[in-house]
Amino acid sequence: MAELPKSDAEQAMIARVFAPLTAGLPGALGLTDDAAILSAPSGRQLVLTMDTLVQDVHFLFDGSVQQASDAAYKALAVNVSDLVAKAADPLAYMLSLTLPAVGSTDWLEGLAEGFRQGQSDWSIHLAGGDTVRGTSGLALTVTAIGSVPQETAVLRRNARPGDRLIVTGTIGDASAGLQVCQSSEAFGHLSRTDADFLKNRYQRPRPKLGIVEALRTYASAAMDISDGLILDLERMCRASGVGACLRAHQVPLSAPIQRLVNNQKVSLTDALSGGDDYEILAAVPPDALGAFAEAARHAGVSIAEVGEIIATLGVSVVGDDGNSLSITRKGWDHLG
Amino acid sequence: MAELPKSDAEQAMIARVFAPLTAGLPGALGLTDDAAILSAPSGRQLVLTMDTLVQDVHFLFDGSVQQASDAAYKALAVNVSDLVAKAADPLAYMLSLTLPAVGSTDWLEGLAEGFRQGQSDWSIHLAGGDTVRGTSGLALTVTAIGSVPQETAVLRRNARPGDRLIVTGTIGDASAGLQVCQSSEAFGHLSRTDADFLKNRYQRPRPKLGIVEALRTYASAAMDISDGLILDLERMCRASGVGACLRAHQVPLSAPIQRLVNNQKVSLTDALSGGDDYEILAAVPPDALGAFAEAARHAGVSIAEVGEIIATLGVSVVGDDGNSLSITRKGWDHLG
Repeated sequence: MAELPKSDAEQAMIARVFAPLTAGLPGALGLTDDAAILSAPSGRQLVLTMDTLVQDVHFLFDGSVQQASDAAYKALAVNVSDLVAKAADPLAYMLSLTLPAVGSTDWLEGLAEGFRQGQSDWSIHLAGGDTVRGTSGLALTVTAIGSVPQETAVLRRNARPGDRLIVTGTIGDASAGLQVCQSSEAFGHLSRTDADFLKNRYQRPRPKLGIVEALRTYASAAMDISDGLILDLERMCRASGVGACLRAHQVPLSAPIQRLVNNQKVSLTDALSGGDDYEILAAVPPDALGAFAEAARHAGVSIAEVGEIIATLGVSVVGDDGNSLSITRKGWDHLG
Repeated sequence: MAELPKSDAEQAMIARVFAPLTAGLPGALGLTDDAAILSAPSGRQLVLTMDTLVQDVHFLFDGSVQQASDAAYKALAVNVSDLVAKAADPLAYMLSLTLPAVGSTDWLEGLAEGFRQGQSDWSIHLAGGDTVRGTSGLALTVTAIGSVPQETAVLRRNARPGDRLIVTGTIGDASAGLQVCQSSEAFGHLSRTDADFLKNRYQRPRPKLGIVEALRTYASAAMDISDGLILDLERMCRASGVGACLRAHQVPLSAPIQRLVNNQKVSLTDALSGGDDYEILAAVPPDALGAFAEAARHAGVSIAEVGEIIATLGVSVVGDDGNSLSITRKGWDHLG
């Protein structure tokens, strides 16, 4: 076994770097104990979600401070995104850090900085966790805890025929961004501005915290779009025992993706099946649509209506000529 | 990046194997959503702890159903052990499963069986989690959630001079068991019974759930012994700003370890610095010691008084001649 003798110096460094992230949460005990104490806000239920991000699977990591920061930000973002999708307000998170088998940990401050930025963006605090040495690369597991007023969590399973399908933001940016991260020549010539926009969308997902109140008040069902819009819509439909019609030409695209579609570097179905967007997909009853849109506008979150829930099982994707598009790849999963 | 196309079959198998573990916890939503909904029992605070176990670092794994079951049982055990040490009643857990990069997952049912056994032993339920493909071996991250009546969690940091040091069970079995797992000749000739006992202590830690009530009622401070008694005692002392005198000859040893000590195959200090016991170390005020012992006896948990907390910083380990023992290795840490 590879259990290694304690390194007090490294242990102390980790405590020093991460303990400040618990500020504002006395129950974290400054990371000096094996556990954290947490009180659910009065009258509220807790919402828990957990996601692991593995180097070379879910994020790129070259040992730099910048990529460590991006990885941390993303690890927190994908968990907060799940809280948002359930209409929960972020509260605290636990972090398990698996250090690479070998090499320096000079990037540890960068990692903490990424978490610090996420905490600041989404009002969430580090409560506790664990650090181990692994046998491969860096891995980050976050358990995020949010809260909702009793019985107001929005689930996947309650989409109903007639509900309108809503997405936040723009779709397909992150998967194109990943390709640009991997090769700057991925799409031939791309302006620096467009390349940076797409890479940022991949590296720094921004959970749509502003939509929480609108979801809680008006949505029948919601989930975040992590593995591609079509695949995630199928999952919502399966959980709800319904189907959906997705109108491809109504799906909002960013200007850089629209340019790539126009230049035939990216197909529309690529955008609809690309993962890592962390936008929100919601089903909203038609009579609540106006109020939902108004609440979203008030919160500064752009939304678009992209289709509707139908009783017939299965998801059909319709082009602007009204015909169904042929979809060969529906999305990506982090599980092979 | 190694993001792989979705395998519906594998995804479905994981859901089928793990969803039954959520029985009794409606907020788990049968693992059909991205999050779990949890209500804190009325008037109680939640206690959260998180531990990652990595193949070849924290457990042995040869791809067999048996070792998968052992790994799962241990992953849950070490987390429940942290809850016990805080005097918390187990409630639910989240599981993030990182599958090995390659190979079959025929052992997945064994993994679920190990969790099922732990759930049954410690009255805890699966609430949710995540499954990803990693780039190396199997890794299991558990976030365990327990509850305590308001302000009754027992922390590391409140040990006070004069408190008596208590340990549950026997010390040093698991580290000897690991050596037997690695080589059946580790200690020369060892009876089959002794070998099996020691291996089981390593592979199947048993959190001392019975001691929760006694800790909550009487202990000043507590923690579980995961990295070796001496090292963990030092940590409790450091957190409390105190020192301790540990009387080595009062530390309870199992009959197999006592035989190994008698045969000079294991030194007493090996036992005191061996990790993975998951027994409880507690500091109990002298005037509460009788009641604590009575409560432990009532709960069927064996305990022993092994020393006391002193005002002078540092831990001294005293032999049966009253002289300090020389300690070169205080314990093992999972972080190198």
